[in-house]
Amino acid sequence: MDYTKFFSADVPSLMRSPVREIFSRVDLSAICSFAGGYPAAVTFPMAELPSLTARVLEKYGTKALQYGATQGVPELRAAIARRYGVPVREVQITTSSQQGIDVCSRVFLDPGNVVLVHNPVYLGALQSFRSYRAEVVPIDDWRHSIAGDRDVQDCGHPRPHKGEGPAAVGCGRGRSEAEASWTALSPAARKDAKFIYVIPDFNNPSGETMTLAEREALVALARERDLLIVEDSPYRELRYSGTPVPTIRELAPERTLHLGSFSKIFAPGFRLGWIIAPEPLLEQIYICKQALDLCPPVLDQYLATEFLESGALDRNLVHTREEYRRRRDKMLSLLEQYMPEGTSWTRPEGGLFLWLTLPEGMDTVALYDEALSAGVAYVAGSFFYTDGSHRNTMRLNFSFIAEEKMEPGIRLLSDIVRRRDL
Amino acid sequence: MDYTKFFSADVPSLMRSPVREIFSRVDLSAICSFAGGYPAAVTFPMAELPSLTARVLEKYGTKALQYGATQGVPELRAAIARRYGVPVREVQITTSSQQGIDVCSRVFLDPGNVVLVHNPVYLGALQSFRSYRAEVVPIDDWRHSIAGDRDVQDCGHPRPHKGEGPAAVGCGRGRSEAEASWTALSPAARKDAKFIYVIPDFNNPSGETMTLAEREALVALARERDLLIVEDSPYRELRYSGTPVPTIRELAPERTLHLGSFSKIFAPGFRLGWIIAPEPLLEQIYICKQALDLCPPVLDQYLATEFLESGALDRNLVHTREEYRRRRDKMLSLLEQYMPEGTSWTRPEGGLFLWLTLPEGMDTVALYDEALSAGVAYVAGSFFYTDGSHRNTMRLNFSFIAEEKMEPGIRLLSDIVRRRDL
Repeated sequence: MDYTKFFSADVPSLMRSPVREIFSRVDLSAICSFAGGYPAAVTFPMAELPSLTARVLEKYGTKALQYGATQGVPELRAAIARRYGVPVREVQITTSSQQGIDVCSRVFLDPGNVVLVHNPVYLGALQSFRSYRAEVVPIDDWRHSIAGDRDVQDCGHPRPHKGEGPAAVGCGRGRSEAEASWTALSPAARKDAKFIYVIPDFNNPSGETMTLAEREALVALARERDLLIVEDSPYRELRYSGTPVPTIRELAPERTLHLGSFSKIFAPGFRLGWIIAPEPLLEQIYICKQALDLCPPVLDQYLATEFLESGALDRNLVHTREEYRRRRDKMLSLLEQYMPEGTSWTRPEGGLFLWLTLPEGMDTVALYDEALSAGVAYVAGSFFYTDGSHRNTMRLNFSFIAEEKMEPGIRLLSDIVRRRDL
Repeated sequence: MDYTKFFSADVPSLMRSPVREIFSRVDLSAICSFAGGYPAAVTFPMAELPSLTARVLEKYGTKALQYGATQGVPELRAAIARRYGVPVREVQITTSSQQGIDVCSRVFLDPGNVVLVHNPVYLGALQSFRSYRAEVVPIDDWRHSIAGDRDVQDCGHPRPHKGEGPAAVGCGRGRSEAEASWTALSPAARKDAKFIYVIPDFNNPSGETMTLAEREALVALARERDLLIVEDSPYRELRYSGTPVPTIRELAPERTLHLGSFSKIFAPGFRLGWIIAPEPLLEQIYICKQALDLCPPVLDQYLATEFLESGALDRNLVHTREEYRRRRDKMLSLLEQYMPEGTSWTRPEGGLFLWLTLPEGMDTVALYDEALSAGVAYVAGSFFYTDGSHRNTMRLNFSFIAEEKMEPGIRLLSDIVRRRDL
């Protein structure tokens, strides 16, 4: 039977996640994999879960297994509102922060609409925007500081050499640069632009963080051109060094949808996130969400409430940050030790990823099979570029790989680079 | 700030659920409410949950809290495949069966496409189809047997009087009738029709069940006109009397998407459902689901696996059916006892709902505030009709109301009807 005629016009725009496809090709646990974006299992509150469950059942009874409110259970909304200092009515719980992205796409985007992003951009967001046939237009490359970018000289940064890449914080692009990026867009893109999407803290995939000046410039642009901002913030609580920068929501609460996630501060198996946004925007998101899945998982919401309210979440975060800080530092020193001249990488202040740039002309997509056979996996950087460019880059995850595999993994990567770079 | 310009063209088609709106208006626990569609909390496996959680954590370890496969965890897919005798590759786990409906809308519907339904139709499905700007076209009224329907005489059923309504099983409409319904559609509706949506077992809202002959007629129509069928089946395991009829999927596996749900056989707080469908259809649904929420809740999936595989689900179902059978019988005998001449109702063989028809000319939407003040709640039947007709009908839920509130509730309803029916 031929099913082609049944599919909607959106279906050809559905993108497979190259990351999820990598997972299905090989058993990554058997090799040195920097590919996934998984948190370390050691950060999950396994030991606490039985008593957490017992407390939730005692406290909330059958309510914990029943249907809940579409906005999320009141207790969790209140807990998040308190934690982030916002009114409860501005908090919507989502069934994962991926759903937060998707519901924004659904409520704001028509085919042909434009979403402005910084390249390289989170794949799950690209998938969602494109599945609604929106055009994803880079307003700027994420960072001038990514080695190999044509703009590196322009912003006054020295072109980074091995081990000399700047820390992955901004280089102070100001308002005039944001404005120049805007005016460089086609008139159609400017007209059809609905929102800017960005992960300002420890960007997935690049690991970079926007400076205050850059956030202010982005906000000024959004205000001047009347755009919304979708601030995707799953890693914000995972800072290992440097100083926190205000969120974009704090700078422009009137036009920002701030997406939070429990995946990296509790566990991803719960599929819980939240949106903090102005009430009139949440109102439409709430109505839309009724049709999506009626309500977020309820027992999971109460477990998250109890985990947060009891202080266990903050205690767990201390260990989680320590664990990841050590892993990040180890990765950075291994890269320093093994990577040949001509490579560079970002030095993230938090999150789960760093970004490796190989010498110009190398192709991480073409090298991928060789890498897999050698026993190391990564995600090719070009997958995260709206135009598939930057084929000499890759995303490396440092949160999930077993620590004893880091050194052999980086060594294998370095061997591959050296072989090509004769 | 005016946000209007940001919303997509779909947003005006988003429908608020009248049921969820009723919930937010009054504290239904303070009155006699037949309004919700909640399962009885007494059917939840509360006592087993702590040991279930402990077993899951012991058996699956940190895997239970990590990201999972987009298709669902292999263990749960396999358990469902075994239970229903289908290949694992034809099983996709969904984050609620509402998501099952929504993902079908997303993958099959473009604005202007047509979904064929039987009136009255499940509200969450109407919300989903319309949110994609599809047109929902009744191919037939659900049943000739619903009192007050113009077709009652045509099919040879006696017009039901008080307490004499036929049992809520079919009246044997055959293939020629299904074909007549099809030819009665406009040429545009026939051209743009993508699928037929139906709850064949214990329909929400009417409580009715399609006979084998009716299912066969529906399948014949779908085959002749090359349509898909979305068979929504959240209540199938809740049969209290009568004989099971084959599912539509069993009759037409090549064109049916069968949606299952754990909400009524485990607990709705887990937000877990499944789709059984031909692989080429699931393939697109799988890719779409990556962008929706990456994967269904993982701990919940393992709890469901363990609950199912250990036999606890089937043991629990025995009690659940007993509980609901008693409640249904009680409702039916209360209606018999209190309802005045000129009213009729369906006699469901399973599920959570029955359908009450008041004398012609009465208006359950207009009566609603009076009913609420008197202390009884229901959902007006016209909300479930694609054209808002049948204002003399209502949906009554018998699974959630406290048993001691059934009698006063039905008495209050009967008083309201008697007052108007002078």
